[in-house]
Amino acid sequence: MQDFYPSRCAARAEVLLRLDPVVHRSWDVTAPLSREQAVQFEEQGYLILENVFSEHEVKLLQSETRELLDDPSALDPYTIVTESGGDEVRSIFRIHEQNAQLARLVADERLAGVARFLLDDDIYVHQSRLNYKPGFKGKEFYWHSDFETWHVEDGMPRMRALSMSILLAPNTPNNGPLMVMPGSHRKYVTCVGQTPDNHYLMSLKKQEYGVPDETILTELAGEHGIVAPLGDPGTVVVFDCNLMHGSNGNITPFGRSNAFIVYNAVTNRLARPFGATKPRPLFIASREAKPLCSVSGPLMESAT
Amino acid sequence: MQDFYPSRCAARAEVLLRLDPVVHRSWDVTAPLSREQAVQFEEQGYLILENVFSEHEVKLLQSETRELLDDPSALDPYTIVTESGGDEVRSIFRIHEQNAQLARLVADERLAGVARFLLDDDIYVHQSRLNYKPGFKGKEFYWHSDFETWHVEDGMPRMRALSMSILLAPNTPNNGPLMVMPGSHRKYVTCVGQTPDNHYLMSLKKQEYGVPDETILTELAGEHGIVAPLGDPGTVVVFDCNLMHGSNGNITPFGRSNAFIVYNAVTNRLARPFGATKPRPLFIASREAKPLCSVSGPLMESAT
Repeated sequence: MQDFYPSRCAARAEVLLRLDPVVHRSWDVTAPLSREQAVQFEEQGYLILENVFSEHEVKLLQSETRELLDDPSALDPYTIVTESGGDEVRSIFRIHEQNAQLARLVADERLAGVARFLLDDDIYVHQSRLNYKPGFKGKEFYWHSDFETWHVEDGMPRMRALSMSILLAPNTPNNGPLMVMPGSHRKYVTCVGQTPDNHYLMSLKKQEYGVPDETILTELAGEHGIVAPLGDPGTVVVFDCNLMHGSNGNITPFGRSNAFIVYNAVTNRLARPFGATKPRPLFIASREAKPLCSVSGPLMESAT
Repeated sequence: MQDFYPSRCAARAEVLLRLDPVVHRSWDVTAPLSREQAVQFEEQGYLILENVFSEHEVKLLQSETRELLDDPSALDPYTIVTESGGDEVRSIFRIHEQNAQLARLVADERLAGVARFLLDDDIYVHQSRLNYKPGFKGKEFYWHSDFETWHVEDGMPRMRALSMSILLAPNTPNNGPLMVMPGSHRKYVTCVGQTPDNHYLMSLKKQEYGVPDETILTELAGEHGIVAPLGDPGTVVVFDCNLMHGSNGNITPFGRSNAFIVYNAVTNRLARPFGATKPRPLFIASREAKPLCSVSGPLMESAT
């Protein structure tokens, strides 16, 4: 398969053009987003959807995710990623296959409908996870484009995927919120350095390969600026697979958690990795592209 | 001398009452601050003074501080503190005795006049430094009250000192700005753990003693909230010696630097440390309380 987005194979980092659309379907009145929202996503590469989930639904999700944290023994141990140099849980992967309520969440039409519209295709869950940035000692996530990693290490052919972060705690300016460079999704920033085997064991804690060049980041930030999409629990932040993003650490007492879902177009299912000898494990990158059946209506106590 | 603010001597951290005023002089029309500003400082423990220094003065200070960074060989090596685990400069101390322009800065009536009013006394420079938080890898400063350290390790008897941070780069929500808990200066949070000898060699990089308890910080933050006083270069942030403050790391490309001056009332000059066997070096804490002679007018190219 042709590699439209080569990375980690040249001696110098480069900025290439994006070859794929951002909003893949033309907007019409049947779209689950307003025209303004579609334009904002196209131009900025992200969208804040407020109050997608009710207070009651948020409480449900919070109690469910707290249970997962409190009893990690019920989980596949490979899906639990702890902080670098500590044993505090940083992420739990593949949550929608380990918990009925989270399976229901990823299938929710309020999310899936938006993804299907923006990607103009049937969709499947490429990755799901619960991110937990604790108070006092939450670590930073350095700048990266998800797509660069998904392409090189997982074999995602084109830019036809997006992420949704369902906020489960207030994201304030001070507790290490997601930061994005609006508009950066229209450029493809290649990285240098070959990917070592089993890189994911380290990169989920602290990225060392697939890290963009500081000079390019400075130019990008100068041109596009940096914005932190904030919100209360129940807010959903949608962002393009190629948007440059990261987050600072968190010394405030206020932890931050979110459920994180990556939807990919079924026609964009994974091929052989474009820059690694073997693909990453399935809990990080699904290789089965079965179209998602979505469910309408509110989340309820007993998800089935 | 009686210890009004014992800390690092009990097994449990406590919240004690502040025994000293915050604004030491009564406000009248001759004050260098408005009545509202005096009330704000009294209640919140900090104050943002915008555009204290002109664009031209800011450029002067920036070029002067850049020279210090670019040629550290001209400085007393003991006054240079590098990042923990790196050799990037984090702070340069005692800058007003190593550079004529910075000597002029600390004597500036626009700063000294405010300090003299708030402290109702002649003042001297307890500490001065240039703080530099680089882009991409700027580290966090954990929560602390300066006074707790100055009292225990330096022997500052009472709360009659304040800090001024002269911003030399934009402080945005995203580049790890100073965060404060407004109103926390009215409480004294004691710490646990004896102070080891020569603690300053480590604590200036990464604090391990004199660190407030997480439960108390959570209560304080819940009660007082957390605010980041932001501003453009030329802005001065004034804050009380006992205000709980800290800052997150900085992964943005935008470094952050400021000149930092601590003014102490001459009648509050240092005694023997209240919790350490020997005082910290003079470049961190001046033991000479010679009243500062202030200078009016703008900063000029050739400071003498």
